[in-house]
Amino acid sequence: MPGMNPDIEKERNTATFDPKEFTILWSGGEQLYKEKKILEKLLLDDPELEDPQPISYFSHKELYENSVRKACIVGEKIRKLRADGEDGVNTYNALLGGSLGSAILKEGNPLALHYVMFLPTIMGQASFIFLIVSNYCLMCFLIVLQGTIEQQVEWLSKAWDCEIIGTYAQTELGHGTFLRGLETRADYDAKTQEFVLNTPTLTAYKWWPGGLGHTANHAVVVAQLYTKGEFRGLAPFIVQLRHSDTHEPLAGIDIGDIGTKLGMKGVNNGYLGLKNVRIPLNNMLMKNQQVLPDGTYVAPKNNVLTYGTMMFVRCAIIRDTATALAKASTIATRYSAVRRQSPIDPNQREPQIMDHTTQQLKLFPQIAKAIVFKATGDSFWNLYNVLSGEIEQGNLERLPEMHANACCLKALCSADAAAGVETCRLSCGGHGYMDCSNFPTIYGTTTAICTYEGENTVMLLQTARYLVKVYGHALTGEQLVPTVAYINEALKLQDFVNFDGSLECIVKAFQFVAANKVRVAYEQVDQRRQQGHSTEMAASLSGVFLTSAAELHGRAFLAQSAYTELLAMCKQVSPALADVLMVVLELYLVDACLNRIGDFLRFINLTDEDVTKLEVRLQRCLERLRPNAVALVDSFDLHDRVLASALGAYDGNVYEHIFESAQKNPLNKEPVNASFHKYLKPFMKAHL
Amino acid sequence: MPGMNPDIEKERNTATFDPKEFTILWSGGEQLYKEKKILEKLLLDDPELEDPQPISYFSHKELYENSVRKACIVGEKIRKLRADGEDGVNTYNALLGGSLGSAILKEGNPLALHYVMFLPTIMGQASFIFLIVSNYCLMCFLIVLQGTIEQQVEWLSKAWDCEIIGTYAQTELGHGTFLRGLETRADYDAKTQEFVLNTPTLTAYKWWPGGLGHTANHAVVVAQLYTKGEFRGLAPFIVQLRHSDTHEPLAGIDIGDIGTKLGMKGVNNGYLGLKNVRIPLNNMLMKNQQVLPDGTYVAPKNNVLTYGTMMFVRCAIIRDTATALAKASTIATRYSAVRRQSPIDPNQREPQIMDHTTQQLKLFPQIAKAIVFKATGDSFWNLYNVLSGEIEQGNLERLPEMHANACCLKALCSADAAAGVETCRLSCGGHGYMDCSNFPTIYGTTTAICTYEGENTVMLLQTARYLVKVYGHALTGEQLVPTVAYINEALKLQDFVNFDGSLECIVKAFQFVAANKVRVAYEQVDQRRQQGHSTEMAASLSGVFLTSAAELHGRAFLAQSAYTELLAMCKQVSPALADVLMVVLELYLVDACLNRIGDFLRFINLTDEDVTKLEVRLQRCLERLRPNAVALVDSFDLHDRVLASALGAYDGNVYEHIFESAQKNPLNKEPVNASFHKYLKPFMKAHL
Repeated sequence: MPGMNPDIEKERNTATFDPKEFTILWSGGEQLYKEKKILEKLLLDDPELEDPQPISYFSHKELYENSVRKACIVGEKIRKLRADGEDGVNTYNALLGGSLGSAILKEGNPLALHYVMFLPTIMGQASFIFLIVSNYCLMCFLIVLQGTIEQQVEWLSKAWDCEIIGTYAQTELGHGTFLRGLETRADYDAKTQEFVLNTPTLTAYKWWPGGLGHTANHAVVVAQLYTKGEFRGLAPFIVQLRHSDTHEPLAGIDIGDIGTKLGMKGVNNGYLGLKNVRIPLNNMLMKNQQVLPDGTYVAPKNNVLTYGTMMFVRCAIIRDTATALAKASTIATRYSAVRRQSPIDPNQREPQIMDHTTQQLKLFPQIAKAIVFKATGDSFWNLYNVLSGEIEQGNLERLPEMHANACCLKALCSADAAAGVETCRLSCGGHGYMDCSNFPTIYGTTTAICTYEGENTVMLLQTARYLVKVYGHALTGEQLVPTVAYINEALKLQDFVNFDGSLECIVKAFQFVAANKVRVAYEQVDQRRQQGHSTEMAASLSGVFLTSAAELHGRAFLAQSAYTELLAMCKQVSPALADVLMVVLELYLVDACLNRIGDFLRFINLTDEDVTKLEVRLQRCLERLRPNAVALVDSFDLHDRVLASALGAYDGNVYEHIFESAQKNPLNKEPVNASFHKYLKPFMKAHL
Repeated sequence: MPGMNPDIEKERNTATFDPKEFTILWSGGEQLYKEKKILEKLLLDDPELEDPQPISYFSHKELYENSVRKACIVGEKIRKLRADGEDGVNTYNALLGGSLGSAILKEGNPLALHYVMFLPTIMGQASFIFLIVSNYCLMCFLIVLQGTIEQQVEWLSKAWDCEIIGTYAQTELGHGTFLRGLETRADYDAKTQEFVLNTPTLTAYKWWPGGLGHTANHAVVVAQLYTKGEFRGLAPFIVQLRHSDTHEPLAGIDIGDIGTKLGMKGVNNGYLGLKNVRIPLNNMLMKNQQVLPDGTYVAPKNNVLTYGTMMFVRCAIIRDTATALAKASTIATRYSAVRRQSPIDPNQREPQIMDHTTQQLKLFPQIAKAIVFKATGDSFWNLYNVLSGEIEQGNLERLPEMHANACCLKALCSADAAAGVETCRLSCGGHGYMDCSNFPTIYGTTTAICTYEGENTVMLLQTARYLVKVYGHALTGEQLVPTVAYINEALKLQDFVNFDGSLECIVKAFQFVAANKVRVAYEQVDQRRQQGHSTEMAASLSGVFLTSAAELHGRAFLAQSAYTELLAMCKQVSPALADVLMVVLELYLVDACLNRIGDFLRFINLTDEDVTKLEVRLQRCLERLRPNAVALVDSFDLHDRVLASALGAYDGNVYEHIFESAQKNPLNKEPVNASFHKYLKPFMKAHL
């Protein structure tokens, strides 16, 4: 392998700021940066954690077996760290998920759900969130939170040493979002003091839980509870699935892996059917609701915590979307500094493709989004912590507001990130299509976020429901809570005048536009109600208006957040870095505005000239960011093993890495493949 | 497996038109429909062509071997049909590519390039196009067209019986679109009357040719020609790669498979390095340019045919994008008729998800696009045939215009189709993420179109170059050719008045908007030129304006085409079908308009009210299409084997098919995976 590619070296030499300064900021400060480096060493320097070949060459079964092998090594490291008292939030985060975890198990960790399921109450909720999100494992911790103290002690001690391996089984083949639709049932038998669990139909099969296929031997199963012959609602049950020693499925347990998927291929998502499976009374998690030995049912009180936590998980996902964009834009930007293609001046050498404006337009907005989403995720995190405090003191005022914001941010950031990853991939032409670019894996992981933990359209509709409600309040003169107070402002204005194009003005304009989208949605629902539709049907028929109002609210939120957070950052850093961040901010806002220019023109009086000006400004932003693009993605500080891309390595030796990767192809180990003798030669000679 | 799912049966019973009528239309008439059914039988009833397990469970190597096996069976069928005199265009199309070919080899056929490369001159060019496109094999036929008659006789006779297996090697690791940048060189040695081929650098390695890895034994290699020590430009050479009998790579040949990819996993894309490989003088294809035995070089005349054919290949791709959308929308629509989720009325059963307006908005525009793209592809095909006649008579007037149209249509239709496939996948929630939905494969195949045969951004820039040029002509008062004549019209208007919302008016408005986008692009280039930039640099800096002008031109073209073609269709069909097609047309146009509403509002004076009206109209179109959605996708007449989707089977037994598919997972053949004993159990017990 040669040294540094000269084109990429030149980029680094001519950058106007010190990437290390932004790296520290991006990592959350010196201390966190140091911890990150220690964990990188622990994981990435271990030869046992390397794959015998690029994993895309494995069959599904081989991939699973390799994933279990590595998950156990990671589990052993966790055990050792714990014994040394060196485990902490960041350790778990790094070892099980996040960028580092994905460097080790890029198609996911089949044990992740186990850790996520049993560690939260020990580590505390806030820290736990990191695990959840980085492991895509979702709401399982809600359930551990639903066990009594005694139950937690019992199960956690077994789980702690991996004496049992757990997962969380809620979703069914025929049922997702709408929990009340679940069909799995648990009938209490007072005679034996047992629950009898059954999967009454094919659609009631549990479907999707990570690790359920062949890894876990226990699961928390969510089922419809019946006691004394009466329906009581949903409840969580701990069910043993496999024999502790032989790992054979127990009687009445029909279990397996659901099959190959677009991504997350190593996670061992499974299915589960239950036929008269009996578990003791005490295996129902009873913190919130109880069944007494005689079958008497004690109903739960309202559980605010659940609501708040679900909100927060969604919001924390924003950080994952930022990481996805950081990875994809790093790979594509480095590639674009090295790849030369299509002369601009026919008498000159082909330029670095990053010199084409059209290429910049693909890459740089993704870099900007990575930064803005990260900053937004961090600030939302802080807000959540404040909010958690308020909730504990019984102040629930801002909960619905924050829930509404979390929903639309989850939807927008995941959709933008998935689209951004694909834009980066396509910007690398054919080479982006190869698995060795790592784009296919990054896309598989990122697009999954659009569906899990609240499907995006469902999320937008939840936000919209809130917005339409508060719009009605605003009409009556009520002052709204902070993040929707712009609706009050908009109601006072007739028109948005003086669009001067300043960054602050773009943010205000976004809010004005969002308020008007909410107004239109409100009017649509109202109109259909007046036509005689029920409120629900009126909302359903207005779905298109509602989702687009929620989207604009989210865009306005992100614009405000970008503005606030990046300006705040600029105040903490060197002038050289601040200059770059200001270009990032301007690029983000102008690009966001042009992407929704139809909404702007609909509600704000802008001329053709004004739009052209914005477009020229976008091009100028691209031009200004160009000299610092490589340094900026360098400062995301993503290890080559984390990027796992022949196109995106730090040294820029794109072609050497691609070629090296092709040499690892098992097909290339033999000069002639067996299929020649078996099929091709007989076919070729058949005419003789 | 139960009978027909009752929900989907109900949909079919309540449709207002006869799907068979549209099926015949879609197939191109009774005769073509019958031929299609015969070929379906030939391929889909052959048990030998079934896979031993779903191919997503194979390793890359196993997948390749299975692909060769099946490709040889298909090859044998071709041989037999030929012997019986029953081979024709449609046969080759069906057996090697298109919907049927993809049903047999859904990750591509490693022999496809061989057939595509050697058959065109025999079958005639127009028919050949089908093969090209459906096999993603692209420009190779250009080269066969570059052989002399004697060369064609020699090589085609060998290829005809598959005595040799060929491929076409042009693209290099470091070089794509810009052909002059290719590095592979061929030096003529007059002493031995041989060419000496070399790969001088790593970036000169041939990269990507289908079948090159381990399947082909010959290739047409494009290289820079040197004779008498002088550079002569690019030329095509036939190079033997592997021994005819042993299949071992010949001396100086470094060859292999480039590795796993996002899609097209069975195609065996390969790489090739050449080191002093000597081939006889006659292995250079010499129809257009010649090298005489003494090394004298005879330069080619200008080759108009190449230009015309490249244009047409791009255009024919539109049909592939229509097929992709038809497949994806069929799967998602059938699933949406069966899946029930999220009650609208809390007191009612969960509705079919197709009853949610937001779901309709995801699905129905894809159905409409499938129909419009198909109609546009067909009409462009007819236009090409007219044009071919004109070209043969020396009339080249419309060639640049049609080239420009083909470029932007290729870019828009492929981008829309890829996005549409993902929209359909995401509309199926988690289940769309499973490989058994077949969405991941359809997406992998469809998104590839954005890159091959002219990368989309490059395509748009080519269109834009033409548009800016003719805009300049229009400014001088010149009357433009038909498909850009709307620019003349727009120049006469000050404003677009009387936007009455009629379909014709929407088409006209699209053209007015496109003309204005071209104007802005023209002004931007002009302005930068006046600032002192070279024409090339001015265009490069205006890239964002140019691509968006080209996009709007393409959108206007599609709008006009949708209007013309669907209205013409309506005149041929029953009133019941015509009613449905009119809804499709309206939905397509209103949706297209709202998707570019920013451009409309920028150049046409529309109020907030006007936009709301369009949005309400969109929702009404969705509502009107709802009762016929299943019948409409049924009428695409895609065989279950072509769809290859547990979610999209004709019988609507979604859950049964998903479950059945999971049972085929090799992991599920053993109750306990070996990794338990090897890794997991030791890990679990280690603490004891």
